[in-house]
Amino acid sequence: MNPKKIEDQEQKTLFGLGEKETLFRLEGFGKKLIEEVQKGEEPKFQMPLRSRSNILYDEGMKFLRIGNKKEERRFVSVGQAKKFMQTIAIANKAKKFISEDLHTSIRGLYYQLKVTLGEDIDEELFSEQSESNELIEDLEVALSVKREDFNLTTDRKGVVAGPLKIMDTFAGEETIIDGTKMGRSGWMIPSDVDNGMEFIDVTAKYVLVIEKDAIWQRLNEDKFWKKENCIIITPKGQASRGTRRLIRKLADKGLPIYAFTDCDAWGWYIYWTIKTGSMNLAYLGRDFAVPEMKFIGVTMKDINNYGFLQKLTINAKEVDLKRAEEMLSYPWINAHKQWIEELKMVLKTKKKLEQDALQGQKLTFVGEYIKKKIEINDLMP
Amino acid sequence: MNPKKIEDQEQKTLFGLGEKETLFRLEGFGKKLIEEVQKGEEPKFQMPLRSRSNILYDEGMKFLRIGNKKEERRFVSVGQAKKFMQTIAIANKAKKFISEDLHTSIRGLYYQLKVTLGEDIDEELFSEQSESNELIEDLEVALSVKREDFNLTTDRKGVVAGPLKIMDTFAGEETIIDGTKMGRSGWMIPSDVDNGMEFIDVTAKYVLVIEKDAIWQRLNEDKFWKKENCIIITPKGQASRGTRRLIRKLADKGLPIYAFTDCDAWGWYIYWTIKTGSMNLAYLGRDFAVPEMKFIGVTMKDINNYGFLQKLTINAKEVDLKRAEEMLSYPWINAHKQWIEELKMVLKTKKKLEQDALQGQKLTFVGEYIKKKIEINDLMP
Repeated sequence: MNPKKIEDQEQKTLFGLGEKETLFRLEGFGKKLIEEVQKGEEPKFQMPLRSRSNILYDEGMKFLRIGNKKEERRFVSVGQAKKFMQTIAIANKAKKFISEDLHTSIRGLYYQLKVTLGEDIDEELFSEQSESNELIEDLEVALSVKREDFNLTTDRKGVVAGPLKIMDTFAGEETIIDGTKMGRSGWMIPSDVDNGMEFIDVTAKYVLVIEKDAIWQRLNEDKFWKKENCIIITPKGQASRGTRRLIRKLADKGLPIYAFTDCDAWGWYIYWTIKTGSMNLAYLGRDFAVPEMKFIGVTMKDINNYGFLQKLTINAKEVDLKRAEEMLSYPWINAHKQWIEELKMVLKTKKKLEQDALQGQKLTFVGEYIKKKIEINDLMP
Repeated sequence: MNPKKIEDQEQKTLFGLGEKETLFRLEGFGKKLIEEVQKGEEPKFQMPLRSRSNILYDEGMKFLRIGNKKEERRFVSVGQAKKFMQTIAIANKAKKFISEDLHTSIRGLYYQLKVTLGEDIDEELFSEQSESNELIEDLEVALSVKREDFNLTTDRKGVVAGPLKIMDTFAGEETIIDGTKMGRSGWMIPSDVDNGMEFIDVTAKYVLVIEKDAIWQRLNEDKFWKKENCIIITPKGQASRGTRRLIRKLADKGLPIYAFTDCDAWGWYIYWTIKTGSMNLAYLGRDFAVPEMKFIGVTMKDINNYGFLQKLTINAKEVDLKRAEEMLSYPWINAHKQWIEELKMVLKTKKKLEQDALQGQKLTFVGEYIKKKIEINDLMP
């Protein structure tokens, strides 16, 4: 590992570009195409290729990203003319949303494309939303602008609480969000945690990412975040874009990030997706990866250390075993002896273990387990 | 309709019983069984039957509830002895959780049952969580106590913002939750909105329930709740128990409740489940129903009133058409001429319409649409 590289990269986050820079890139994109037309040239643009063949694991920076292969979108091409026009239509809408200072979802964008374009041209430019989804990704990579900066909202799913204060500048108003004042619940992690959202006070020692909301509720009731001076986040399963960005931003603040998931295919997937990114979102690169993240558990080894867990294992499903085998083949996973041991134990015993099982003897044991694991540094890479 | 009846019922909410009353009922349940054993009688208990044959639509009170049929759980019965013991084990755990003043999920309960019971008896009393789920419902109806009062947390899913202040007494601390201070996001609606949770200031004129989070985000950005002085809630699809209870409690405060969903099978289902309750949860009765709720849209009729929606309809799926036919057969729906017209229009045109489509011409139209519908009272029952 080369920490220098990560540091360099840190300066280059492509999130929260702001209105001015995003508009500049969109306008530059349009101007270049117009110039080509005026010069009698064919309008075209290049972008990094997003297909599997161009996704690589960056050994130095420890996350999945896209490589150097490019592809070209050309206007004078039977196969590409429609896509080309669609991409420009989306860029045009993004510019409009930013100028209006209004946000919408990609579904809202899709309906706007259907209505307003229909007025100028006869043919229906978009018939399915899936078409526009793919082209938004095109535009994200082509311009190195994230959809959040195009004023597109994304699905929200996670919750946060604990000692962090956020200055939220939104729709012309400033609000201070205090993560210690959320009571029995928590603050829903928003879609965009970059533009107009600043940490003003983060006194926490670390961040705990808890797969399941039920366990988050358990720890919140124990005031775990207060006693341990940490931030507790649950992605509620697979993490949304906003949740992944929030974790990345907290890691950039220098906070250690610990993950606590089930010991099964789904739990591991959640961990590794947050840590190294996923194939599908590799084009987002480091902005969506947290290579520094460490894994607390649940591990197969815990079964030996905590006797009562013995009878709380569940039979692993076919998907768990298949996933364990796949994981053993990933170089970023099989580089770690501890993960090899864990995965082999799953394949041998054909068992899995849920984080909920830690409550078997007493409800408050969940917090004790986490505390001890961090204390004695019993963590996995 | 007989408003008197609803008023009567209002006094009888079985939610938020509090620790003392819940313990009293649990202890009463146990004492009765012990007395029967001591008298040499067979321990047994009665409870309302939850099967379809005992679910009825209450014409007077306008929601689904269970009828007067009872069933009996007997200890001296080959088919019931295990279930009987399991139910008592669950009651015992509930008592423990309340005494400890700690909450857990039904999954946490299941693991506790597996560990501690295993110490005393040889046979495994619970092998699947599905067993304990069903028995929790048994205990809820047998004792007229909701699982939230047994200190069992449930899945959380909805978000709320707007002019309401809540005093949250939780884990020994008091926090004031201010729905106007949630910035770009919102307060996650908790699992239990009864015990230790009080409205201290609700100045809103009405409550708007928005099916989709993306549309909630749109309206939150427009500060719709501020301009209209209303509370905005999104269940994020089908409403969780906590979200349904919160809506019921706000209705009990005298606030009108308006629903805004897609014009399709799923959207209607969300509306009617909140309004009259569902078959599965009919045993929860009025505590989980909001018969006063009105439907804003989206409606098929909107297509005639807003020209641009014409080309934004989507082909209805088989499930939408099947659901529309089913709905036409429900007496609580076909009692309303407007719903008959809507459903017949769906079946005739084989079309549906999403709430997102309202953004087709301009993003802020969503709020204008809602405002106007309420103003001119263009609402469905």
